[in-house]
Amino acid sequence: MKEKMNLEKIKAFSFDVDGVLTGGGILCNSNGDFLRYFDAKDGFGMRMASMHGYGLAIITGGWSETITTRVKASGVKEEDIYLKSRNKVKDFIDYCNRHGYSPDEVMYIGDDLPDIPLVKYCGLGVCPSDAVPEMREAADFVSEFPGGKGCVRDAIRMVMQAQGTWTFDAEEYENKF
Amino acid sequence: MKEKMNLEKIKAFSFDVDGVLTGGGILCNSNGDFLRYFDAKDGFGMRMASMHGYGLAIITGGWSETITTRVKASGVKEEDIYLKSRNKVKDFIDYCNRHGYSPDEVMYIGDDLPDIPLVKYCGLGVCPSDAVPEMREAADFVSEFPGGKGCVRDAIRMVMQAQGTWTFDAEEYENKF
Amino acid sequence: MKEKMNLEKIKAFSFDVDGVLTGGGILCNSNGDFLRYFDAKDGFGMRMASMHGYGLAIITGGWSETITTRVKASGVKEEDIYLKSRNKVKDFIDYCNRHGYSPDEVMYIGDDLPDIPLVKYCGLGVCPSDAVPEMREAADFVSEFPGGKGCVRDAIRMVMQAQGTWTFDAEEYENKF
Amino acid sequence: MKEKMNLEKIKAFSFDVDGVLTGGGILCNSNGDFLRYFDAKDGFGMRMASMHGYGLAIITGGWSETITTRVKASGVKEEDIYLKSRNKVKDFIDYCNRHGYSPDEVMYIGDDLPDIPLVKYCGLGVCPSDAVPEMREAADFVSEFPGGKGCVRDAIRMVMQAQGTWTFDAEEYENKF
Repeated sequence: MKEKMNLEKIKAFSFDVDGVLTGGGILCNSNGDFLRYFDAKDGFGMRMASMHGYGLAIITGGWSETITTRVKASGVKEEDIYLKSRNKVKDFIDYCNRHGYSPDEVMYIGDDLPDIPLVKYCGLGVCPSDAVPEMREAADFVSEFPGGKGCVRDAIRMVMQAQGTWTFDAEEYENKF
Repeated sequence: MKEKMNLEKIKAFSFDVDGVLTGGGILCNSNGDFLRYFDAKDGFGMRMASMHGYGLAIITGGWSETITTRVKASGVKEEDIYLKSRNKVKDFIDYCNRHGYSPDEVMYIGDDLPDIPLVKYCGLGVCPSDAVPEMREAADFVSEFPGGKGCVRDAIRMVMQAQGTWTFDAEEYENKF
Repeated sequence: MKEKMNLEKIKAFSFDVDGVLTGGGILCNSNGDFLRYFDAKDGFGMRMASMHGYGLAIITGGWSETITTRVKASGVKEEDIYLKSRNKVKDFIDYCNRHGYSPDEVMYIGDDLPDIPLVKYCGLGVCPSDAVPEMREAADFVSEFPGGKGCVRDAIRMVMQAQGTWTFDAEEYENKF
Repeated sequence: MKEKMNLEKIKAFSFDVDGVLTGGGILCNSNGDFLRYFDAKDGFGMRMASMHGYGLAIITGGWSETITTRVKASGVKEEDIYLKSRNKVKDFIDYCNRHGYSPDEVMYIGDDLPDIPLVKYCGLGVCPSDAVPEMREAADFVSEFPGGKGCVRDAIRMVMQAQGTWTFDAEEYENKF
């Protein structure tokens, strides 16, 4: 783990899907689609970030309409969803450029080997408790929560609490979602 | 936790869905619907309450036909299901007024930030063992069971045992369901 | 737990579904159907029993074509599947009569209040480790495995090992299934 | 466990499905299909093996189009998928012959009684941590991970690390998948 995490500089959060926003389980449907379980508390954490003006992005090797449907309901804009990503650092840079973020200002959470280059490149590299051993070595911060069961919520809250923005306004929520 | 829980006054039970009646998992189906896992023992606890004349209500920010289908099978009347609720206290008051309950007579179980105002407002505020930390602080009672795996059953049984109504009549069950 | 379980007399196995053949989870599908997860090792245990001539029955309050589809693949005959059962002892007696079993010769596994009369009535009343407390009191034998994760396999194996019939013949299996 | 596992000789990996590539759960769909949850990290382990030229095969008693769809996405060729296998050793020998492998050069992972003859016959017999007791006795190696949650990844990595091939080339991955 890095000696000092600069939680104060983070302006946006980006995420892998399988093993991060989900527990890694993939349900193969009869129509050939791959379905996934997402977590309600993680989704609410993402909406908290969105309500306070943070950016949200998805960078995943997976592909399915259902990923798009779910993460949009959690506050991610369609143009910030990178499916079938095979070069995650490249897609991450594209996201940063389009929104005027420095790579240093964006967190990324990943759990497996293809995520390691980006976890090292981004501003704050996070992984769930059940990431592969190589990733747990590489990450700046290992959440105590596993994928699909709170690691996303945990990391967002850690940053927002450090910045004093982890506050819930019921009225604003009512109006925005 | 409150010094003294007035279990004796409770006449109705109301519930959040994600993270309470479910473990928080949301399965995104190919048709765009969000599917959820409910627990059979929780469902039976709700039918026990219904058989003994207690009120049952759902107040959730989620929305899906499938929620309605499931909770109706557990004894909730359709008019007492509040989907897409953005102001839970308001919907709770509406439920109380329509049935002539004092807010003090109705339990509510919630697990996340949008549930906190109602957990504090209702007669007995309960949360599952895996609720967010802010909620575990706010609730009158933290169940030892997690969402979707017994917290609903646990809380209903606690109240009904205190009132001496946790009795199962096989014949009545046969006739009613 | 009974002082002495007469494992030697058992000739047939009967089961509840929710919380026994499954972990109690009920997935509400968009078409209104309730879907369930069954366990492959439990299913194989049932086929072992069937291969050695034991009877198999299902007695459940649940109803869904999918229950029938699954348990038939595990060796249960369609006429021995009681769905929507509201009086389980009556259905159990019907099963025994149709096959010439004495109630004393048939095991039943259940997990919740409506199962207790039958667990007490049948020849060997079993429940999973995560059955409700009232059932764990009532059962002759509490499996160390939870519902949907081995309690069915465990109980079948216990009986068949006591009778010396827990033997797998690959060739017979190849021919029968 | 065998005194010495010849990890160096393994050229191909073969797998059972239920309880190995999955946790054993079988979801019965309304259309009569049996659906399964696969693990993303296991899938990536299989693609790692495929990228480095190892063979991959499936030998399962199960049957469903969805198995084929999933394992093809993990790098298994359609002709190396044996569904509805009732004599697993025979199908294993067929796989070896078609590809010119000696049985000694192929690993197999299984979890239940019908897998035991093949686990003993193949070059390296592996089982998940939650395999049935008879299998945990028979296997050369018992993974510390359960079925559907890492045992496949664990066993592949063990072999490839012993052979010095557990290296991830992001560019090659980008081109191949």
